[in-house]
Amino acid sequence: MQHRSIRKYQQKPVPEEVLLKILEAGIRASTTGNMQVYSIVVTKDPAVKERLAPTHFNQPMVTEAPVLLTFCADFNRFNKWCRLRRADPGYDNFLSFFTAAIDALLVAQNVCIAAESMDLGICYLGTATYNAGEIIDILDLPRGVVPVTAVTLGYPAEDPGLTDRLPLDAVIHRDIYRDYSEREINEFYTQKELINTNREFVKENNMETLAQVFTDIRYKKEDNILFSKALIEVLERQGFMNHQ
Amino acid sequence: MQHRSIRKYQQKPVPEEVLLKILEAGIRASTTGNMQVYSIVVTKDPAVKERLAPTHFNQPMVTEAPVLLTFCADFNRFNKWCRLRRADPGYDNFLSFFTAAIDALLVAQNVCIAAESMDLGICYLGTATYNAGEIIDILDLPRGVVPVTAVTLGYPAEDPGLTDRLPLDAVIHRDIYRDYSEREINEFYTQKELINTNREFVKENNMETLAQVFTDIRYKKEDNILFSKALIEVLERQGFMNHQ
Repeated sequence: MQHRSIRKYQQKPVPEEVLLKILEAGIRASTTGNMQVYSIVVTKDPAVKERLAPTHFNQPMVTEAPVLLTFCADFNRFNKWCRLRRADPGYDNFLSFFTAAIDALLVAQNVCIAAESMDLGICYLGTATYNAGEIIDILDLPRGVVPVTAVTLGYPAEDPGLTDRLPLDAVIHRDIYRDYSEREINEFYTQKELINTNREFVKENNMETLAQVFTDIRYKKEDNILFSKALIEVLERQGFMNHQ
Repeated sequence: MQHRSIRKYQQKPVPEEVLLKILEAGIRASTTGNMQVYSIVVTKDPAVKERLAPTHFNQPMVTEAPVLLTFCADFNRFNKWCRLRRADPGYDNFLSFFTAAIDALLVAQNVCIAAESMDLGICYLGTATYNAGEIIDILDLPRGVVPVTAVTLGYPAEDPGLTDRLPLDAVIHRDIYRDYSEREINEFYTQKELINTNREFVKENNMETLAQVFTDIRYKKEDNILFSKALIEVLERQGFMNHQ
């Protein structure tokens, strides 16, 4: 209930025993058929973080946080095991990628909650999927491995308030999906639009509406198309698009 | 640390205030740009659960659990808001789907941990992505909405032990990825192979190795290819594969 993304960190390392406890809790997450088709790359080395920074659009927290976690869909380890046991793995397809991505994302959220329960702060980096190809090169991820998200981890050096959320009724549906009327959309989004920081955001960007800040500045169609094509290419390159 | 999947439930409803508390905790999860591009379909109606059961391969818990949660990537609501605010949404592409899927999966794991902290039990249903098209029809999911996972929820009527996990060293990498040697694979998987239930599993299925139970029986290449094609078709049908 108290989650806030932390973007400023103390220059204080995360003790190894704390890190291990968090990761041990993380891997208790549900996993498809108990296959554990994920890996977590734990990056502390400043040189490696420096090389990764541009893939995360040089957000300062990437180099400033003591730990950067890259969560990967990973069938490489499982496939190697199969091949050493006279079993022929058929996991070079989109469903297997998505299965492994689910595994990795459940572990990621488990790790984050464990971290927060131990007074650490975290911030997700959505950029992991935008520049997956470059991350693969830097982290030396073999075929069968694709980064799906990354998280900065460390002791907070800021104490931000909770971020606004839509009312719960806006995101849940009872029994089946009931599509939204114009009246409901207005009702659900008005509070967000009235928040001072969001109103300033609209002004600063010379936009008419908050929605336009998303469509025209933050998450633009042309960027989404570029990143979509790049991500599909990454899935092909890492061996997840064989449907023969 | 104490997570077990619960497949048998008491015939005791989840009180509405408990359910709301869990869902409120769930939506505190990190979300891309605070867009909250997900929806949760909360199904209690036995008739709807009955219709969904075959999409989850008739696992008894789907109808026996008092609540079935279907977590969906959802750009429909956000797109409607954009259109009502003179903004032109460019979210009909693969990156946007994957972004929304990440949002939905982080919320799912948050909900599960909140549920477990309130003495409820959960079980993930990986089948949600296998039969996404049928789930879309039954739950009346509009364009822009794709189920990515489902979870059964209720008070446990069983108390299973913890499931085995690979040693932590098997799934983490320091700084960059270090690929696995044959020796390491043997070391990491031997304990799993020696577990009695796994050894019986191999015998029952007339297989030589545990890995063959996965490749030849539980997660077969031919099924994966069929489900991959179906899932990509679903993404096209729901409007997430426009890369022009």
